[in-house]
Amino acid sequence: MLKINEDYLKLRGSYLFSDIAKKVKAFGEANPDKKIIRLGIGDVTLPLVPAVTDALHSAVDEMGRKDTFRGYAPDLGYDFLRDTIVKKVYEPLGCKIESDEIFVSDGAKSDSGNIQEIFARDNVIAVCDPVYPVYVDSNVMAGRTGSFDELNGQWSDVLYMPCTKENNFTPEIPEKEADVIYLCFPNNPTGEVITKDELQKWVDHANHTGAVIIYDAAYEAYISEDNIPHSIYECDGAQSCAIELRSFSKNAGFTGLRLGYTVVPKELIRGGTKLNALWARRHGTKYNGAPYIVQRAGEAVYSDIGQAQIKEQIAYYKRNATYIYESLKNLGFEVYGAINSPYIWLKTPDQMTSWEFFDMLLNRAAVVGTPGVGFGPHGEGYFRLTAFGDHEATKEAVERINLLTR
Amino acid sequence: MLKINEDYLKLRGSYLFSDIAKKVKAFGEANPDKKIIRLGIGDVTLPLVPAVTDALHSAVDEMGRKDTFRGYAPDLGYDFLRDTIVKKVYEPLGCKIESDEIFVSDGAKSDSGNIQEIFARDNVIAVCDPVYPVYVDSNVMAGRTGSFDELNGQWSDVLYMPCTKENNFTPEIPEKEADVIYLCFPNNPTGEVITKDELQKWVDHANHTGAVIIYDAAYEAYISEDNIPHSIYECDGAQSCAIELRSFSKNAGFTGLRLGYTVVPKELIRGGTKLNALWARRHGTKYNGAPYIVQRAGEAVYSDIGQAQIKEQIAYYKRNATYIYESLKNLGFEVYGAINSPYIWLKTPDQMTSWEFFDMLLNRAAVVGTPGVGFGPHGEGYFRLTAFGDHEATKEAVERINLLTR
Repeated sequence: MLKINEDYLKLRGSYLFSDIAKKVKAFGEANPDKKIIRLGIGDVTLPLVPAVTDALHSAVDEMGRKDTFRGYAPDLGYDFLRDTIVKKVYEPLGCKIESDEIFVSDGAKSDSGNIQEIFARDNVIAVCDPVYPVYVDSNVMAGRTGSFDELNGQWSDVLYMPCTKENNFTPEIPEKEADVIYLCFPNNPTGEVITKDELQKWVDHANHTGAVIIYDAAYEAYISEDNIPHSIYECDGAQSCAIELRSFSKNAGFTGLRLGYTVVPKELIRGGTKLNALWARRHGTKYNGAPYIVQRAGEAVYSDIGQAQIKEQIAYYKRNATYIYESLKNLGFEVYGAINSPYIWLKTPDQMTSWEFFDMLLNRAAVVGTPGVGFGPHGEGYFRLTAFGDHEATKEAVERINLLTR
Repeated sequence: MLKINEDYLKLRGSYLFSDIAKKVKAFGEANPDKKIIRLGIGDVTLPLVPAVTDALHSAVDEMGRKDTFRGYAPDLGYDFLRDTIVKKVYEPLGCKIESDEIFVSDGAKSDSGNIQEIFARDNVIAVCDPVYPVYVDSNVMAGRTGSFDELNGQWSDVLYMPCTKENNFTPEIPEKEADVIYLCFPNNPTGEVITKDELQKWVDHANHTGAVIIYDAAYEAYISEDNIPHSIYECDGAQSCAIELRSFSKNAGFTGLRLGYTVVPKELIRGGTKLNALWARRHGTKYNGAPYIVQRAGEAVYSDIGQAQIKEQIAYYKRNATYIYESLKNLGFEVYGAINSPYIWLKTPDQMTSWEFFDMLLNRAAVVGTPGVGFGPHGEGYFRLTAFGDHEATKEAVERINLLTR
């Protein structure tokens, strides 16, 4: 008799964004005349830039001719893309990352869910609270988190690092020892960042204790201030303690095209084993490479014309972020994030819970955001809005919120 | 201090096809003048058909316009593709499969590696011997296989089901109870098939014991004989005991485009839990959907024109299979497979081991095949050739083998 993985049953309800989708669907069906504005899930709305669609068309043509057709891609990624990433992403930052430390994948969500697989089950994980749900959920599914406490909304075996306005949404290094530390900056959901000096302390800590940092840099393209690191490898010694997750979703609009990569430096060794070799083995056994045409699209992002075009897109979203941030501030909201991020993190007014505010915004303004508590107990009383909407729709959403608060 | 997943260290060397690639690379560097003919790895060589490239171009255009751009795909697949699969694959076979039982993915390799994750660690797996390496390796990485015995080349906790010429390469139902049974027909690597009556016995057995069958039907497009099932759901009761893996790689040349799907019927319940819900949760948490453009390409495979075009490709490869099979038979080789499969499974001559024959073929004929022992101990003394090569190259390979044997 087959026995199922009981750890799956411990998962809390369904995935946050599925819950939201259901509520929004129900509202839409009950109010077919209302135009819903979605500033909830962090999905982009601008189309792929011409440099990317040109590369796709040209790669599709190659795939349609016998002499240029490509079958199985290398499991770890085509050299043309891995080399480009080294040259265009890491060299300009002064980070010594080599091609064979870059693993191309179908996106940062898959990688952030799968990376824990190369670690033993009895490691202790530490996560920010609030946090992107995949880090915790993937560890729940692997049986690494203990039991869920309904009272405090936390897992017994997870180390939570509260991110509150008191600590500027930058966690403090936990006193108890963690083996795997998930950090994401610019942060999802708070939109706040960490300075290079502060991040250096985490790197030093991890090198001291032997922990490994999973550094999610999916939003680095939105950094506009100085002294905010775009990569953890800008910190000394990060190569011996950190894995970095990167995405093409938020900088180049690849949410529906799927491309990302993970950097596992060869210097990162635990228990005498290179984590680079373990991740390579996982890719080689359970993954068959990202599509050739999508890897060519990824390469095109780094061409001069591609860079110019995606910079315009990022600027467009950043204008949205600033607009939401400034407008809500003027309306009297307490707001965070936005400056180096596509996310605006706001304190719900009048002691409302996150879901109360969600329901109010949906039902009275037909605006969808994300309840902060969905990211963890310390997100309670907060709410996330994204800057990825259409600019006119974003302005209308803010106007509707304005009307609500009058 | 982070502890690594020690189960990864139990894996035998590197992945079979990586080993072959290294040997071939070394040979090519030492013999730059020799034209190597690759009939080893099961990769296709014909380009994507026009119906598919047309669909890709048109989807790329949609992604480049704001009003038709698509961001995140539904994690489980677009309805247009899931509905098409129901209508074009399962309805004609008389199988009652519904859209929400179909999970679209980036390919059968990922799915066949990931599926074991929804099962408890202490299940016993049963595999054919020889077998596609991913089934076993993914279970080794999950700590489910015990220790490796160097003497017999087997894992202590895996149930091996020998496939030999004595049993027509169709395994017998094992006497010991297995919880997860991997079956692949038409088989990789032997190219042999199972009749519907024989498969029905497995379904009945699984329903009796509560085992779950993982049925890999990646090669069903090559079936030419009657009474050979194209899907396990042609058998009565399969919906309560079987998961089916499907691929677009071998029927439509998607090896470099990446698309597949897994069918998990809602009737399949173990320990009171629907496996459909568990797999949906895995997809929702650790996967972000196949690219929109690739799903449109998948849909195009099932259009009338798409079907006509891919049937020509399959016929091309089947001609190769027949050619290799007949020619080698005439040369005195003992050959299997080929009739319902793109694989030819041959007995190595003169008591040579699989790797001895590999080395001889590579070094003396510059022809690459796959050593049978790479698929398991009962593959020793056998060798796999694929029909996915260019027809002229395939003829030349056979001619070179002919010269060798004189």
